[in-house]
Amino acid sequence: MAEHYLEAIQAGTLRTGDRMPSVRELMRRHQVSLSTALQTLRHLEEAGWLEARPRSGYFVRQPRRSSILPVQEPRSLLAIDPAHYVGIHEKVSNFIARRQSSMPQLDLSGMTCAPELYAVDALKQAAIRALRERPDLLTSAMPHNGNMGFRQVVARRALNAGIRISADEVVVTHGCIEALNLVLRAVAQPGDTIAVESPTYFGLLQTLENLGMRALEIPTSPHTGISVEALELAIQTYGNIKAVVVVPNLQNPLGCIMPEAHKDALVKLCRQARLPLIEDDAYTELADGSVTPSSLKSRDTDGNVIYCVSLNKVLAPGMRLGWVNGGRWHERIKMLKFAHTRANEEWTQVTAADFMAGTGYDRHLRRLREILREQREQMAESIAAYFPEGTRLNVPNGGVGLWVELPGELSSQQVFEAALAEGIGISPGAIFSNSDRYEHFLRMCCGHPFTRELDQGLRQLGRICKGMME
Amino acid sequence: MAEHYLEAIQAGTLRTGDRMPSVRELMRRHQVSLSTALQTLRHLEEAGWLEARPRSGYFVRQPRRSSILPVQEPRSLLAIDPAHYVGIHEKVSNFIARRQSSMPQLDLSGMTCAPELYAVDALKQAAIRALRERPDLLTSAMPHNGNMGFRQVVARRALNAGIRISADEVVVTHGCIEALNLVLRAVAQPGDTIAVESPTYFGLLQTLENLGMRALEIPTSPHTGISVEALELAIQTYGNIKAVVVVPNLQNPLGCIMPEAHKDALVKLCRQARLPLIEDDAYTELADGSVTPSSLKSRDTDGNVIYCVSLNKVLAPGMRLGWVNGGRWHERIKMLKFAHTRANEEWTQVTAADFMAGTGYDRHLRRLREILREQREQMAESIAAYFPEGTRLNVPNGGVGLWVELPGELSSQQVFEAALAEGIGISPGAIFSNSDRYEHFLRMCCGHPFTRELDQGLRQLGRICKGMME
Repeated sequence: MAEHYLEAIQAGTLRTGDRMPSVRELMRRHQVSLSTALQTLRHLEEAGWLEARPRSGYFVRQPRRSSILPVQEPRSLLAIDPAHYVGIHEKVSNFIARRQSSMPQLDLSGMTCAPELYAVDALKQAAIRALRERPDLLTSAMPHNGNMGFRQVVARRALNAGIRISADEVVVTHGCIEALNLVLRAVAQPGDTIAVESPTYFGLLQTLENLGMRALEIPTSPHTGISVEALELAIQTYGNIKAVVVVPNLQNPLGCIMPEAHKDALVKLCRQARLPLIEDDAYTELADGSVTPSSLKSRDTDGNVIYCVSLNKVLAPGMRLGWVNGGRWHERIKMLKFAHTRANEEWTQVTAADFMAGTGYDRHLRRLREILREQREQMAESIAAYFPEGTRLNVPNGGVGLWVELPGELSSQQVFEAALAEGIGISPGAIFSNSDRYEHFLRMCCGHPFTRELDQGLRQLGRICKGMME
Repeated sequence: MAEHYLEAIQAGTLRTGDRMPSVRELMRRHQVSLSTALQTLRHLEEAGWLEARPRSGYFVRQPRRSSILPVQEPRSLLAIDPAHYVGIHEKVSNFIARRQSSMPQLDLSGMTCAPELYAVDALKQAAIRALRERPDLLTSAMPHNGNMGFRQVVARRALNAGIRISADEVVVTHGCIEALNLVLRAVAQPGDTIAVESPTYFGLLQTLENLGMRALEIPTSPHTGISVEALELAIQTYGNIKAVVVVPNLQNPLGCIMPEAHKDALVKLCRQARLPLIEDDAYTELADGSVTPSSLKSRDTDGNVIYCVSLNKVLAPGMRLGWVNGGRWHERIKMLKFAHTRANEEWTQVTAADFMAGTGYDRHLRRLREILREQREQMAESIAAYFPEGTRLNVPNGGVGLWVELPGELSSQQVFEAALAEGIGISPGAIFSNSDRYEHFLRMCCGHPFTRELDQGLRQLGRICKGMME
């Protein structure tokens, strides 16, 4: 019932200032108990959509965050940085080292949800079941190309998303970072240039640096994703781009989802330019709404799209598991995986396959998406309330991250240090690019339950920011 | 009791042709039951040390393999190959692909023991216990530097072997191949030269090729390991060697253990030449005898020795787990691990730590060593019986491998193909070097129970070899 009224509020059917039906009216209209009606109203109030006026009833509130402006588009969607060796390593190493040594009590710097938001018990049972059914799971040599059952399950789920691959066309990996290492080495050499989004996941920038490759940052809209026109221009300008890496759904850190037409254009451009298109999918299952956003891979007709999936954020933060379909480079990626880390443990794969094959996985995803949405809304509210005037914020349609643009004179590196000193962890925008364009941005995680501590933490962050502006 | 008489036979106290004490004599001398006395005699007979002559008793046999000569020393322990890009990849890829697609029923090509030779039940129980004690093990973010309990356990065991490191000085890896990738990248760049043993583990050669590094193969004695004099000459001749990788105990594929004096000299040479010494330890715990062979790391005084351990062959083939102490390069290796695959799953580490901390692990190792010794002896016997005249064989003092030198005109690649066609897998010598010096060698695994099938398989292999000589 809360959902019903929430949709009405969001759609504008119930407008700000409108009075909600009374408890008695709700009971009569929807044939529910007093307790259910009250709970609904309180739920919406806690979520910030209603405010209670004593002896008047519940009224629709203007959520504070609608007064917060979205993050700005980049100044020019065509201007391209000259490719250069990434040089990100120091920045990222420092950030990681500082975060690890400080161990902030309130750590909003990652992209992992709180453990209890995952299917703790079901996964545990699946793991125990795996060991009971195959007691020698731990003492048998690991199949080189991954556990067949796991590969079948992921191939079947991919089919539901319009991706036609067989279980044999799946390489099991240790997750996103390993996959990036493998696929980049499959398509390029040290010294080669790889086009990436701007800003982009710092793990990708760090991997590029480690492989001695050059990152060419392509202007990216915080609302529609990578600029296909800018990529086309870059391909023409720089004759030596060897691949492009894109996160089309719930981009990290921006949170945007590419419109369908842009995805079509991107896949077509890369096909025509014979430019390997590497798709990184770690969050798609966390997108809101009844329709899962489509993949670039589902548009692949000639094996030009390399599709990398990580299960770490959607299935289980304690599992180091992912998979790749390498398109034209599949065999090379298979051999690189073998030369990189040999085979993955079967135990993990069997457990994941068991859980993912049943209805429990989709049920878990639905629940997680809903919880994330609430937590995200509440955090956005608090940011709008506490952060300095001029702060901008994209509230993405799903996922775990919040990308916040602070007033331009602020340095997120300084905010990061000051916050760490007070036991709060955030990710400074500087690590998401080799340029200094995002010095005044920061990324925060909405995967934690919205508690009073979290609210106070956000208040403190706001205070830190305001203090730096005087 | 069988052990007692076996030592007597091996020491020569009981000579070939000597008559064993009768069953009654054994019962009286050793105060044992009829059944024990009979079992002892039968055990020694099955192992090939005794032969039963009807109505006469048991007599000491000449084990056939003592007539088989050991593998020859390399022609010159000083001659060094010029370093070159490895070019091994094709050979290894073909070998692996052929082996995987053929799936031989009798696969002697690996270095993994049969699953039941490991502590199947204890490991399973430890894994289940881990999940019950920490139900959120699968849904909690993985600690970046590895599980503390696991690191403490391995550090403590290392202390028993004279290696003084703390739990903080342990980087958890996904095993040998990942470790090699990380440590080579920590000390060298693409284009650099790395000194290696000759022959050496094909995984190392493949990794070098993948990293664009050059392998300089150093002459290695099948009995005493790498030639320290040859390495010294190489360091002087080639000014640009960036590191040396050595397997001092139960070298793969040779099976030899370096004498203590050679280990001293090697560590000293590398320290003086400021050449990073990378020690690869995957089999030390499988060495026979009451004293574990020492490590190079235990001689390290200035962090010049990088120590890599893999648990895959000694603890559990189903676990992708190892660790590294990086000496002077430890911090760099930590960051490379993070950039390579992020953190290992905690579940595996907690399980391993639980099992390795108790007495069960040492008990398992003792049992495994004993079983391997028996299986090794019996395989050696069969090889001596079935293979062509002129076949040479080292029977190592431990471990999983048997390195067999076929008569010089044979090609182990052809033997490999012919064997695969008959459902038998072996590892052709060619993949263990970039030279063609080992074309007529092959490596076989003694980790499988010695059954009639195995004996027949060896007989078939012998027939295949003999057939190629006509």
